[in-house]
Amino acid sequence: MGGRGSGVLPFRTVAIVGVGLIGGSLGLALRQRGLARRVVGVGRRQAAVDRAVELGAIDAGTLDLRAGVAEAELVVLATPVRAMVELARAAADALPRGALMTDVGSTKAGLVRGLEEVAGSRFRYVGSHPMAGSERRGVDEASPGLFDGALCFVTPTLRTDQRALAVVCELWQALGARVRSLDPAEHDRLLAFASHLPHLVAAALVNAAPPDALACAGPGFRDSTRIASGDPRLWADVCLENRDRLIEALAQIEQQLRTLHAIIRDSREVELLGWLESAKAARDHYVCS
Amino acid sequence: MGGRGSGVLPFRTVAIVGVGLIGGSLGLALRQRGLARRVVGVGRRQAAVDRAVELGAIDAGTLDLRAGVAEAELVVLATPVRAMVELARAAADALPRGALMTDVGSTKAGLVRGLEEVAGSRFRYVGSHPMAGSERRGVDEASPGLFDGALCFVTPTLRTDQRALAVVCELWQALGARVRSLDPAEHDRLLAFASHLPHLVAAALVNAAPPDALACAGPGFRDSTRIASGDPRLWADVCLENRDRLIEALAQIEQQLRTLHAIIRDSREVELLGWLESAKAARDHYVCS
Repeated sequence: MGGRGSGVLPFRTVAIVGVGLIGGSLGLALRQRGLARRVVGVGRRQAAVDRAVELGAIDAGTLDLRAGVAEAELVVLATPVRAMVELARAAADALPRGALMTDVGSTKAGLVRGLEEVAGSRFRYVGSHPMAGSERRGVDEASPGLFDGALCFVTPTLRTDQRALAVVCELWQALGARVRSLDPAEHDRLLAFASHLPHLVAAALVNAAPPDALACAGPGFRDSTRIASGDPRLWADVCLENRDRLIEALAQIEQQLRTLHAIIRDSREVELLGWLESAKAARDHYVCS
Repeated sequence: MGGRGSGVLPFRTVAIVGVGLIGGSLGLALRQRGLARRVVGVGRRQAAVDRAVELGAIDAGTLDLRAGVAEAELVVLATPVRAMVELARAAADALPRGALMTDVGSTKAGLVRGLEEVAGSRFRYVGSHPMAGSERRGVDEASPGLFDGALCFVTPTLRTDQRALAVVCELWQALGARVRSLDPAEHDRLLAFASHLPHLVAAALVNAAPPDALACAGPGFRDSTRIASGDPRLWADVCLENRDRLIEALAQIEQQLRTLHAIIRDSREVELLGWLESAKAARDHYVCS
């Protein structure tokens, strides 16, 4: 990853399937950084595609998947995870020879397996997951700097073409992301704790609070529940896709809260302090503010 | 609250006991807005008091509580909650006649009871709780705009002097806060959900995550655990002060997570979606972003 470059960038044509917040931001970034000569967007609604053109996120847009990918050197799937395998299957024999495909899905094990199966020898596939986004959605919220400084996972397997992997890494790096390679299953285990569980917990905090308590929310509550304002459809998909790992993570936090409940019930001050100190130390060490 | 004003502002002398983030920000704001002719800071360490003077948060500082409050028309307690009653007791007969006292404590029921008892007929007391602060601490982090736009609770009881209440409300409004009056016990019930529980949950998210998952944290995890970087000592005090209400709130979120665990285990998609949608709707309605 890094170094001399593959000589592939800039791409001639990149097709982005799904022109929402992530797809739109990718289009803006590719165009503004000169990483693609032409960006084609594939959407489900004409209005969204037109808006993406208007905002400069894509050069041209279409609702026709097979037409959209017909000249693409690189296809990026930026739809909800659960739609991706079927879209790839529908696009597969319309792709030019040697085409490369990646995706921006938040879960990887099942998805990578599914997309590798569809790819076969028809196209080269490498899984990606840029840790960028927000609780907002739609191309109107897109930003060319979305990936700048973000962590981006790539999830190669034994079947991954190494040259394709190098190109995908180079792409994300050119967009400003810090690229890290993870096994797909390992990705899902770690992201269950780092991303999917926090989403559920944020929603649980909101759902647990009576309305008059929500009206008392200050900056702490606002930040700690921000992600609960994310797209429910998208997050329901992610949580069910990563069900097994997420259940393990839920069991962990349930155990933490049971322990804590007992500590507070019995006013065990030293233990409470130790528990809060260990959280602060871990967060201050690992998570940049 | 509001309207013509009491004619009391600007104060001649305000004493701030505790010159950390909140006390320091209060001093800066009082001085910059001309709400006090003189601000005296009372600290525990000479270095902190000197630094507060240097930063312009106070006009003068002392380690001697009784000397510090001797000319104060208004005393604001801005120390950890658990120290406040003893400090008020130690200061009580050094206060000038007719002095007014308030505090910025995050829990109110026990504190207000304790401070009202100390006050007796020796000084007038009104509880306050400005919802401002951050995970940072110390006077170096102080900001004169900290209370601007913040929600600030005042917690009068049947014993509260109405004129004193009006002055305290006027003070917080003059600092830019939105003032809301709540019964102390009701305050603690609501804040258990809006503030204390989110702190514990943020710490539980960090403690539940394996270190390699923490290293994968993106913006979602960072925001949802920000408050876990708060001062452990301060938050241990708050949690134990509000133990009974917090236990009720913990039971609520434990119930939420149990329900959710079962929903995900059984892949009940419609229920999961409904559960996420209700959280999003409540947050979008009640919590400003």
